[in-house]
Amino acid sequence: MFELKERDGLARICTLYTKNGILETPALLPVINPNKILISPKELKEKFKTDSIITNAYIIWKNEAFKEKCLAQGIHAAIGFEGPIMTDSGTFQMYEYGDLGISPEEILDFQCQINTDIATMLDIISPLDAKYETAKSDALETIRRAERAVKRKKETLLACTVQGSIYTALREHCAKELSKLDCDIFAIGGVVPLMETYRFENLAEIIISAKQHLTPSKPVHLFGCGHPMIFSLAALLGCDLFDSSSYAKYAEDGRMLFPDGTRSFEQIVHSSCLCPVCEKFDELKELESSERVKKIAEHNLYVSFAEIRKVKQAIYENTLWELVEQRCRAHPTVFQALKSILKHKEFLERFENLYRKSFFYVSQESLERPAIHRYEKRLFERYEKPNAKILVILPEGKKPYSKTYSEIIEKFPNMHFVVDSVLGPVPIELDELYPVGQAVVPRDTNASAKARMELLLRRYIEHFDYPIAVVWESGENLEILKEPSEKALDFDFMRVKAVADMQFGKDARKALFNGRKIKLKKSQTGRIRNVFADNIHILSVRNDGFFTLKFEGGKLLHEFFSYPKLRVAVNDDSAEFVVQGKNVFSKFVTDCDENIRPYDEVLIVDSKDNLIGIGRALLTKMEMLSFKRGIAVRVR
Amino acid sequence: MFELKERDGLARICTLYTKNGILETPALLPVINPNKILISPKELKEKFKTDSIITNAYIIWKNEAFKEKCLAQGIHAAIGFEGPIMTDSGTFQMYEYGDLGISPEEILDFQCQINTDIATMLDIISPLDAKYETAKSDALETIRRAERAVKRKKETLLACTVQGSIYTALREHCAKELSKLDCDIFAIGGVVPLMETYRFENLAEIIISAKQHLTPSKPVHLFGCGHPMIFSLAALLGCDLFDSSSYAKYAEDGRMLFPDGTRSFEQIVHSSCLCPVCEKFDELKELESSERVKKIAEHNLYVSFAEIRKVKQAIYENTLWELVEQRCRAHPTVFQALKSILKHKEFLERFENLYRKSFFYVSQESLERPAIHRYEKRLFERYEKPNAKILVILPEGKKPYSKTYSEIIEKFPNMHFVVDSVLGPVPIELDELYPVGQAVVPRDTNASAKARMELLLRRYIEHFDYPIAVVWESGENLEILKEPSEKALDFDFMRVKAVADMQFGKDARKALFNGRKIKLKKSQTGRIRNVFADNIHILSVRNDGFFTLKFEGGKLLHEFFSYPKLRVAVNDDSAEFVVQGKNVFSKFVTDCDENIRPYDEVLIVDSKDNLIGIGRALLTKMEMLSFKRGIAVRVR
Repeated sequence: MFELKERDGLARICTLYTKNGILETPALLPVINPNKILISPKELKEKFKTDSIITNAYIIWKNEAFKEKCLAQGIHAAIGFEGPIMTDSGTFQMYEYGDLGISPEEILDFQCQINTDIATMLDIISPLDAKYETAKSDALETIRRAERAVKRKKETLLACTVQGSIYTALREHCAKELSKLDCDIFAIGGVVPLMETYRFENLAEIIISAKQHLTPSKPVHLFGCGHPMIFSLAALLGCDLFDSSSYAKYAEDGRMLFPDGTRSFEQIVHSSCLCPVCEKFDELKELESSERVKKIAEHNLYVSFAEIRKVKQAIYENTLWELVEQRCRAHPTVFQALKSILKHKEFLERFENLYRKSFFYVSQESLERPAIHRYEKRLFERYEKPNAKILVILPEGKKPYSKTYSEIIEKFPNMHFVVDSVLGPVPIELDELYPVGQAVVPRDTNASAKARMELLLRRYIEHFDYPIAVVWESGENLEILKEPSEKALDFDFMRVKAVADMQFGKDARKALFNGRKIKLKKSQTGRIRNVFADNIHILSVRNDGFFTLKFEGGKLLHEFFSYPKLRVAVNDDSAEFVVQGKNVFSKFVTDCDENIRPYDEVLIVDSKDNLIGIGRALLTKMEMLSFKRGIAVRVR
Repeated sequence: MFELKERDGLARICTLYTKNGILETPALLPVINPNKILISPKELKEKFKTDSIITNAYIIWKNEAFKEKCLAQGIHAAIGFEGPIMTDSGTFQMYEYGDLGISPEEILDFQCQINTDIATMLDIISPLDAKYETAKSDALETIRRAERAVKRKKETLLACTVQGSIYTALREHCAKELSKLDCDIFAIGGVVPLMETYRFENLAEIIISAKQHLTPSKPVHLFGCGHPMIFSLAALLGCDLFDSSSYAKYAEDGRMLFPDGTRSFEQIVHSSCLCPVCEKFDELKELESSERVKKIAEHNLYVSFAEIRKVKQAIYENTLWELVEQRCRAHPTVFQALKSILKHKEFLERFENLYRKSFFYVSQESLERPAIHRYEKRLFERYEKPNAKILVILPEGKKPYSKTYSEIIEKFPNMHFVVDSVLGPVPIELDELYPVGQAVVPRDTNASAKARMELLLRRYIEHFDYPIAVVWESGENLEILKEPSEKALDFDFMRVKAVADMQFGKDARKALFNGRKIKLKKSQTGRIRNVFADNIHILSVRNDGFFTLKFEGGKLLHEFFSYPKLRVAVNDDSAEFVVQGKNVFSKFVTDCDENIRPYDEVLIVDSKDNLIGIGRALLTKMEMLSFKRGIAVRVR
C-alpha cells in the first residue's frame, strides 16, 4: 500500500506500508553487504535515522552459515534491523559474473522464506551500449520472469524491474507490461553503468519513458542510484526510492559525495561540510586506512540523507524546480539532463500543481518549466479577449501613467492592454494569476528569452485578431489614441471573466456570469476577494490569482458544462460522506475529468452526476483511479 | 601587511598581519555587541574557530563601565578574545539615529587607546536612494575624514570606507582618493540597506566600481555583509573581509541563513542542514524563546563559516566561477547580479588566471566568463592562420573520417580546419588549449549560444580572409575538395606556432621558431610534450595546452620582443637571488609588462633588461607593484 501525502508535480512525499512498518518516500535505503559490514544496521538506525535498509539475498544465499541463520531466525533478527528490509536478487552479480547457479524462482522463494519485506525479482541488465535486439530480448525475458514472480510472492511486497537499456521504446513497453501485473514496486534497473559514465541525459530519458506508463499508485525505485547529485532530478521525475552502496564504494577510494559532485578527501583543503565526520576533517588524514574508509562512508551517508531531506522540504514548499535548477550546475552532464527533461513539457504539465507560493526565475531554464508551458497553452486555448479593437502593448514593468488599470480601461474603452512579459504576453486582467503574478524575474534577460517573447507576442496579436496593435511608450501615445467613451468597460469584471476561463476552461465566464448581476467584494488594498452572482457568493480569489469555488459557483459550472468536465465521480456508498463534508478517498473515485490537475477546484458528483460537493483535487485522474489509499479530493 | 597565497581571478586567499596575530582571508568577522552578548568571544573561538571578531567602539564608548574597563585593560582582555579584533566606529548608529556626540577624531583615538587591531574611521552612509548631490557631499566628507584619520592611526591598522551610494562615479572617485592614503584596509560601506532590499545588482556594481580603483595589495572589507548567499559572489569580485551581525539579527526573528536563502525555522519540516544545531532540529521548537534564538544564531554562524570555507576551497581549486553559477540560483536578484557582473569582462579578464584544471559549462552564463572572453580576444588579436586557402568548418564533436588531424592536414595541404565550437571557432591546432581543450560542455545549447557561435564564425572567416569556407558534413565533401599535395603541412608544428602566439603574443612564433630547426618530443599518447630548437629544449607543453618556458626559450623571446613585453624587472640587489633560482618577491619588482596575467610565464630581468630568470607570475602588474609582501613570480 502506498499513499500520497504531499506533491510537487511528479515528485511526492508518500507512505509505503510494509509488513514491518512504514517508510516515508522519497527514501534512501542504504545497502548492507552482509559479508562486509562497514556500518552496522544498528548504527544506521541510531546515527542516520534510516527507516529501512536493503541487502542482497543472493549474497546471503551464497554464505552458507548466514543463509541458515536467516532461514532460522528471519532476516530481521539475523541482520539486526527492526523495520522494513528490502532484498536485491543478485541481478547485478549476474550482470558482472554470469550464471549464478540459482533460478529466478528459487531466489524469490528464498527472499520470501527469510521474511524480507520487499523482495526483488531476478531480472536481466543489458550490457552498456547493448544492441537493440539484445536489449529487447533481455527486456522481454525480464517481463516473462515478472509474470512468473507475481504468482509466487505471497504477502511479501515484490519489486519488478523495468529494463530495456537506453531504448526508450523498450522501457515504455516494459513499463506497460509490468503495470498490468500485481507487483508492488516498480524498479528502474540497469542504470548504474549509465550513472558511472555520467550519462545522465540517458538516465533522465529512461525514467521519463518508464514513468509515463507505470501505474502511478506504486512507488518507483531507481535501482543503484546513491549519488546525492541526482536525487532532486530523479525525484522531480517521480522516483520515490533510492538505494546506496555508493556511500561505501566511494569511501573505499577515499571519495566523498556532495550534492555538487564528488571529491577525494585529499583534494579538500578547506572542508565546508558540517557533518559530524567533517567537523573533525583534519583528523581524517591521520586515521589508519580502514578507519578512514568507515568515516568517509559515514560522511557519505550524512550528506545523502540530508539531500533526501532537502528534496522532501522542496516538495513540501513546492520549490523542487528551483532546487533542481541549482543542483544541475554540479556538472555539464547533469545540466544536459535537465535540458532534455524540459522537452517533455506535455507530460510534466499533466502532473503540475495548479499553483505554488512563488516562482523564482533563476536561469534560462526557468522559462521552460511546465507552469509556464501551461500558462501559454491556456492563454491560447481558453482565454477570450475583451471587446476592444486596439491592442496596447505595455513593456514589462512600465505601467501607463494612470494609477490603476481600471482607470485606464475606463478612459480608453476601445483599447485592451497586454504586458509584454518575459513569461509571455499577459492580458492585464490576468496579471495576478500564477505564475505571472508571483514570478520574481531578473531585470534583464538574454537573447533566447527575448526571441521567445517576440514570437509569443506576435502569435498573440494574430491569434486574437487585433486590427491595431501599438506599443505604449509614453503617456502621449495614449492621448493620441484616446477615443470618447460611451460606457466604460469594467476592468475588475474583465479580470474575473478571464481568470474563470483560464482556470475552469473556455466559456467558464458564460457559465458563471452570463445574465447574472455580478458584485465584487474587494480587500483594503483593492484586490478582488469575493465574487457574488445575484447576491450569492460563488467564488473567492486566492493570492495566487485563482478562484476557490463556493458550492453555489460549483452549481453554475455543473449546470453549464456537461459530464465529465471538472467532475470527480464517487460511488454512491461514499456520496453521503461527501455531503457531510468528509474528504474523498481515492478508492471511492469511479471516474474523473482527465484535465484535472493537482490543486484544481473540482465538482464532486455521484453516479448520476448529481453535484454533492466541491473540493480541491490532490491527484490527477490516473492517480485517483490507481491509488488504493489516501485522499483524492479535499472537500470543503 | 597583506600577502597573497592563492587566487582565482580577483578572488584570493591572503594573510593579513595584525598586532595580535594573523587572519586568513576571505574571512568572516562575527559581530559582538558588548551590551548584548549572544555567543561569547570564547565560544566563537572554541566552537567556530574564528580567527577574529569585530565589535563596535561607539557602543563601548557609550557604556561607561565597559569603556573604563577597555581603557584600563585593553579591549582583548576586556572582551575576552585573544586574536585580531576589529572595531567599527558608530557610522551605522549615526545613520540610524543621527548625531552621536563624538567627533570622528575622538572615536578613532578611542579605538587606538583601547588597543584595537583594526580601527574604522567614522564615515557617512548616504540614505538609500539619496540624490546624487547628497551622496556626493557625503562621499567627499568621508574622504576628508579619511585624510585626517590616516594621520592619527599610529600602529593600529585603519579601515577607510568607500562611500557614494549607488553612484558608481562617486564610488570610483572615493576609491581613487582613498588609494592615495596610507590606510590599511578598504571598507565598502553603506551597502546594508541595499542588501536588505535585495538590490544585489547595485551591490555588485558598487563593488566593481570601487575595486577597479583600489590599491590591490590591501584587503577589501564588504561592510555589513553577513549573508552566506552573497559570499561567493563578493569574493569573486575581490572582497576579502565580511562581518556578520546577521547571524544574531536574523536569529532574533527565528530566521535561519543558508547559502540558498533564508528560511524561518517554522517553515522547515525536513531539515537538511548537518550542523550540530540542526542535528537536533526537532528540539528547536520545544526550546524557550531566548534559548532558541541562541541556537539559531549558532546555526547561522556554522553555515556562514562553512560557506567561507567553501569559497576558499573553490579559490584553491580555481572553481569559483562554477560555485557562483550555482549560488546565484538562490534568488532572481542574485542571478541578476551575476548577469550584471558579466558585463565587466574587460576588467575581470585582467585578473583572470591563464589556466585552470577544468572548465564546466553549467549554464548560459558560463559562456560569458572572462576565460572565454580572453580566448575570443586573443584569437582575433594574436592568432595567425596557416598558409591555406580553404577553410573547412567542422561541426563540434565530429572529426573527419581520418584518424588524426595531422593525417588530414597532410592529405589536404590547401585546407585549414576550424571546429565550430560552442565556445567559439577553434582552429584545430588550438584544440588542446585552455579553456577549449578542458571544457566540458552539454550536448545541446540554446538559441543565444547558437547565435553567438554563428556570429563568431562569420567574424573568423572574414577576419582571416579565407576565400573559400565550406562546412564539412561527411567524408565525401573532403574527397571533392581534395587537391594534390606537394609538401604536407606539419600539423604539430602548426599547433606549437599557434599556441605560442596565443600565449606570448602575436609573432611569438617568429621569435621562437623562425630560421631554427624545430624538433618535437611526444608522449606515448601522441601529445606534444617538449619543443627543441636547434637541439635545445626551449618549451614544454602542459595539460592545459600552454607552454612552460625553458630558459633557452625565454632567451629567444627576450631577444625578439623589446622591453617591457613579457618582462618582470627586479632591482639589482635581488637579481643575484633570482639567478640562484630564488622566487621573486613583490617588494623587489620595479616594473612589469601590464599584459601579464596570473600564471603567465614571464622573463625576469634586471635594471638593464638582462635576462636573469624565467618563472610563473602569480600577480598582475598592478599587484606586483603594490604588494609589500609575498611572491610575485615563482622562479624555475
